[in-house]
Amino acid sequence: MNIIKFPYEMQAYCRELRQKRASIGFVPTMGFLHEGHLSLVRRAKKENDTVIVSIFVNPAQFGPDEDLERYPRNFEKDISLLKSEGVELVFHPKASDMYPEGYATFIDVEQVTNRLCGLSRPSHFKGVATIVAKLFNIVGQCRSYFGQKDYQQTVVVKKMVRDLHLDVEVVVCPTVREADGLAISSRNSYLQPDERTAATVLIKALRAGEAEALRLRPCGKVEAAKVTDAMQSVLENELMAEVEYVEAADPDTLERLKQLNGKAILALAVRIGRTRLIDNLIMEI
Amino acid sequence: MNIIKFPYEMQAYCRELRQKRASIGFVPTMGFLHEGHLSLVRRAKKENDTVIVSIFVNPAQFGPDEDLERYPRNFEKDISLLKSEGVELVFHPKASDMYPEGYATFIDVEQVTNRLCGLSRPSHFKGVATIVAKLFNIVGQCRSYFGQKDYQQTVVVKKMVRDLHLDVEVVVCPTVREADGLAISSRNSYLQPDERTAATVLIKALRAGEAEALRLRPCGKVEAAKVTDAMQSVLENELMAEVEYVEAADPDTLERLKQLNGKAILALAVRIGRTRLIDNLIMEI
Repeated sequence: MNIIKFPYEMQAYCRELRQKRASIGFVPTMGFLHEGHLSLVRRAKKENDTVIVSIFVNPAQFGPDEDLERYPRNFEKDISLLKSEGVELVFHPKASDMYPEGYATFIDVEQVTNRLCGLSRPSHFKGVATIVAKLFNIVGQCRSYFGQKDYQQTVVVKKMVRDLHLDVEVVVCPTVREADGLAISSRNSYLQPDERTAATVLIKALRAGEAEALRLRPCGKVEAAKVTDAMQSVLENELMAEVEYVEAADPDTLERLKQLNGKAILALAVRIGRTRLIDNLIMEI
Repeated sequence: MNIIKFPYEMQAYCRELRQKRASIGFVPTMGFLHEGHLSLVRRAKKENDTVIVSIFVNPAQFGPDEDLERYPRNFEKDISLLKSEGVELVFHPKASDMYPEGYATFIDVEQVTNRLCGLSRPSHFKGVATIVAKLFNIVGQCRSYFGQKDYQQTVVVKKMVRDLHLDVEVVVCPTVREADGLAISSRNSYLQPDERTAATVLIKALRAGEAEALRLRPCGKVEAAKVTDAMQSVLENELMAEVEYVEAADPDTLERLKQLNGKAILALAVRIGRTRLIDNLIMEI
């Protein structure tokens, strides 16, 4: 396996791949890989000649009081997982090479970043957009794979790609879940056993919201407030859960819906103990 | 001559050029072409297999009270000039294709944009960085040519290219001047005859600053204030000139210098009537 550390080396390597007309599938990650990431890798392998996985915990997307330092890392295990998936090329830059002294350029995707997670994490998506653009510029023309679990991230990235004419096809893959429905996330490793049990409340609330919407559909208009109320009720029954937001939103603009009509995303962010978890469900009505 | 209007058509065309291993020289302009632009085109022709010139008056780099509407345009003449230079490919998009409804992504290059022209034109360089990144993403790997006259713009673009790993080599070419020293600019067309005469005060002030610096050099430290004072004195003698700034700055960071030592840029922005003109000189001491 080829592990490349330097951005310019990676860029030159990808340029050569393109000259050979090899299609590139690119999976950007922050490491601590799990089945969610691996599902992206497998899809990328199926659809491209070469797969590149980047492993980089991006400091720019963590707020000052967030979990950058304690964010879980296990590079050796990541590499061994990627080897068993047949990945041959990993990009693993240092923060000091991605953000050298005097670094000053940031990308702002307005509107879609001011909603949902953007409200409590004001600089988060600026950091996400910036690192993703940097990685896309290094890798160049490619298909890039993201998980639906970070739904707002996929909206921001797709919007940026369109607006800046980045030569990238963004592919969004379904959320991978544990047997009890918990969306797989690196941050699940923070959870104590009782918190891990409580964390299933996220998917339970989403499913309750979906069920309420489907129940109301035959009666005419489906008020979004009734759907989010159904989600809230489930969350209130879990004493360890502290709700940050519960919303029914337009899947493209992320604007809060008043009525559900057509496609909608049900989304929530909940703290279980010190751990902030997010999840979402796309539904059609 | 091939005039392409649509971003995605241009991107596909450039992708093909690269597959044929043709090197691309790219000259982004706002049209109303003059000898300054043509010097960039000639240099690009010398150094590349194909030259692309873009003509696009970028609304995002004009402030709300600036001259977007009255900015001079003459597309027919531009095309005839480019034909006589042997340019075969022009990109001429519509504003509604570059900034379609709901456009939301902007690039901020911090620090170097907060100085010189950035102080009076707070959103200007955000607009410049954004359009240049968009054009670079459309054209792809290339050498791109900019005039030194818009010196701060060249610093912002080079910084953005480095920070975002854009696959572009930025080439900065000398300012082209009229016989009497006035830097050639599309905005010179705004000047009434008496204003045109008065406008030579910019280069006179820069040369006076340079002369003062060279005069002081043998006496030890060269105080920047003495150099800018010499420039100010020249400007004060021209009653039609209203000074916006006069500075001696570090050529890389654009930070104001206290002492001149090594390379420096002398830069100024001056209003002659309603027309805002800028100019600069790089000097070594």
